[in-house]
Amino acid sequence: MQIPASLERLVEEFSRFPGIGRKTAQRLAFRVLSYSPDEARNFAEAIVRVKEQIRPCSSCFVFTDNDPCNICSSNSRERTQLCVVEQANNILPIEKSGIFHGLYHVLNGSISPLDGIGPEQLTVAQLKQRIQNEQIEELILATNPTVQGEATALFLQHEFENQVTRITRLARGLPAGGDLDYVDDVTLSEAFSGRQPF
Amino acid sequence: MQIPASLERLVEEFSRFPGIGRKTAQRLAFRVLSYSPDEARNFAEAIVRVKEQIRPCSSCFVFTDNDPCNICSSNSRERTQLCVVEQANNILPIEKSGIFHGLYHVLNGSISPLDGIGPEQLTVAQLKQRIQNEQIEELILATNPTVQGEATALFLQHEFENQVTRITRLARGLPAGGDLDYVDDVTLSEAFSGRQPF
Repeated sequence: MQIPASLERLVEEFSRFPGIGRKTAQRLAFRVLSYSPDEARNFAEAIVRVKEQIRPCSSCFVFTDNDPCNICSSNSRERTQLCVVEQANNILPIEKSGIFHGLYHVLNGSISPLDGIGPEQLTVAQLKQRIQNEQIEELILATNPTVQGEATALFLQHEFENQVTRITRLARGLPAGGDLDYVDDVTLSEAFSGRQPF
Repeated sequence: MQIPASLERLVEEFSRFPGIGRKTAQRLAFRVLSYSPDEARNFAEAIVRVKEQIRPCSSCFVFTDNDPCNICSSNSRERTQLCVVEQANNILPIEKSGIFHGLYHVLNGSISPLDGIGPEQLTVAQLKQRIQNEQIEELILATNPTVQGEATALFLQHEFENQVTRITRLARGLPAGGDLDYVDDVTLSEAFSGRQPF
């Protein structure tokens, strides 16, 4: 059996998402088939609306419906701390934890020479400008603990070490609730080398 | 930070899909944000189109853009064999395998008294009619190997045993490429009780 063309097209749309394979995409598309016409219209409208209404903040590049975003324009945030993340969605867990009250800067990716992504493809120039114009005292590098994330953090540290008093990065070690039995070698060696007085 | 309203709405739309949790929904919604306006419009359009163009086949209830569907209207199919499945997408792996050349009947679910789903909520009445009107010689029950799927198969067997010459169900046993170490008790006991001469 051929899948009907319009169904196949929707399956392909879902397949484009990262982490969604052909089978999951089929499952999602079949689910849409069981929607009422109203439900399908609402879903389609939500997609169009989000593109119309959401823009990256011109200062920090977080997605927002106001510009500058709520965080950049807030006067209850600590404006001397700047937390650098790879992607806009990375700020959600940080905001949810409530541990950080400073400002953000979204790089829109990480340095990855093999994919042709260097500092020019990221918002590094804009970060440089913010460091020059704003009273940043601490740059917190919160890139992902991956090869690309580390490379990006290292690059930013070299780039800005003479322009910011303090550059830090998030601690590495055992995740809360983890089990020593299942911890990988790299995490374990970072937990040892970063051990703290008890 | 509050997620902007229109973004939150899209996250909720994605969360409605089975197997998609809040975090995955956020990831998908953020992905849509990175689409070009054209890409977003295409995606939205694919959703609306699928509802406009795809209907269940009036005979077998497979989703189709023609009625009756390609399988029901084909003259190269074995019209004496009827394979009963729970959902329309269940026929995709069967068709892909090329092992079956008969007709299908989609129940649109399985019997599940706790969810208020009995034979009346499924296409059992239409199946009965097909058995009366068409020259069905074998009813192949291909419901899922779950409690509800089994209950549904059992019900159909009782319902139609006097009306169809032969009612079969798909074999149970070890899945190809599986590993005895990881096989569950039920599968293993079914593999033993259904063992065949070598």
